[in-house]
Amino acid sequence: MLDPELISHILQFRDDRNWKQFHNPKDLAISISLEAAELLENFQWSGIDVKATEKTEKIAEELADVLIYCTLMADAMGLDMNQIVANKLEKNADKYRVEKSFGNKKKYTELE
Amino acid sequence: MLDPELISHILQFRDDRNWKQFHNPKDLAISISLEAAELLENFQWSGIDVKATEKTEKIAEELADVLIYCTLMADAMGLDMNQIVANKLEKNADKYRVEKSFGNKKKYTELE
Amino acid sequence: MLDPELISHILQFRDDRNWKQFHNPKDLAISISLEAAELLENFQWSGIDVKATEKTEKIAEELADVLIYCTLMADAMGLDMNQIVANKLEKNADKYRVEKSFGNKKKYTELE
Amino acid sequence: MLDPELISHILQFRDDRNWKQFHNPKDLAISISLEAAELLENFQWSGIDVKATEKTEKIAEELADVLIYCTLMADAMGLDMNQIVANKLEKNADKYRVEKSFGNKKKYTELE
Repeated sequence: MLDPELISHILQFRDDRNWKQFHNPKDLAISISLEAAELLENFQWSGIDVKATEKTEKIAEELADVLIYCTLMADAMGLDMNQIVANKLEKNADKYRVEKSFGNKKKYTELE
Repeated sequence: MLDPELISHILQFRDDRNWKQFHNPKDLAISISLEAAELLENFQWSGIDVKATEKTEKIAEELADVLIYCTLMADAMGLDMNQIVANKLEKNADKYRVEKSFGNKKKYTELE
Repeated sequence: MLDPELISHILQFRDDRNWKQFHNPKDLAISISLEAAELLENFQWSGIDVKATEKTEKIAEELADVLIYCTLMADAMGLDMNQIVANKLEKNADKYRVEKSFGNKKKYTELE
Repeated sequence: MLDPELISHILQFRDDRNWKQFHNPKDLAISISLEAAELLENFQWSGIDVKATEKTEKIAEELADVLIYCTLMADAMGLDMNQIVANKLEKNADKYRVEKSFGNKKKYTELE
């Protein structure tokens, strides 16, 4: 997703403000959830308009905030984002086998 | 955050299963919110244990799911993740000036 | 919403299991958020089907869980649910004046 | 929870503004999730202060908003709140048997 220098920029932003002291995993998990809600707010009352194109700029900003907090959480926990995503994709490939999931939006727990 | 080939892998995973048809922005925003909740669930009832280190593996998996859905949403909306994060950092730098925010966890709306 | 004896039943359920020790406001706020996500999950990938009628039973269960945790949070904080709702309605009536909000789904911050 | 006349007041508030047209179940589920996030925001960065007592007034307001949207969702789906909560408590009693759950915060899926 993000260039390494952009990740450094995010961490520098935090350190310039001496914010690392607040960045425990629990509060960062809360923060990701809050930013995800702000992202979702752009679709509140949109009904069957599932694109909300008139709000693209705001959506981009909130999606960016989710990504920023994910970066901060990975750093706080010493996790490598590429590694954990690669591992999860492998696990998901097993839960969602192509032959059962093709064109099927069911959750893996509901796939027979 | 993620290497370009990993991003391609995420999109390929989606296309192998013919899932793009379900990936409208509203349902993807819902999905990011749901994965953020699954991440947060690891801290439910942890009280003052803000690290929950015994759950690191599960936390890593759920953080990965948030990142995967962010990638899918960026793709569905034609957004460049590096670009939107760089833009948002610039905006945040203005909302959270170092001189007012140093060591201060207040929201920008509450900074005098 | 709920009958007083049902509220007593909820609190008794908690006390029978000696769970009050875990019920601090922060973890209860997390719990309400998690149950709200489980409620929302019923609409993930529903696209323009905004009713998801085939999932009514599951929706009812998750809505009930949100209500149960709201009751537990009000109890943990010594809040009277009727009182706080009555107060908030009064405040909302001021933010959303009928003449400006009639048939208008805009947030109060966007009402001119 | 709420007195019947308070519930009528909530529904009247909606009807005075001609808002029922926007109140489909999917957008109401989104709304409950958003209000739950606003409630949770009061605990962001609180660290090991799990009470955030200085924010009690704001917490009460956001908890009230969750309850208001739950009432609106129950009405939109024709659900009786007392009934669904009574049903769910019965189901929960079976998932969380006193002998296994006493003083134990584990999720039912993890109870041996």
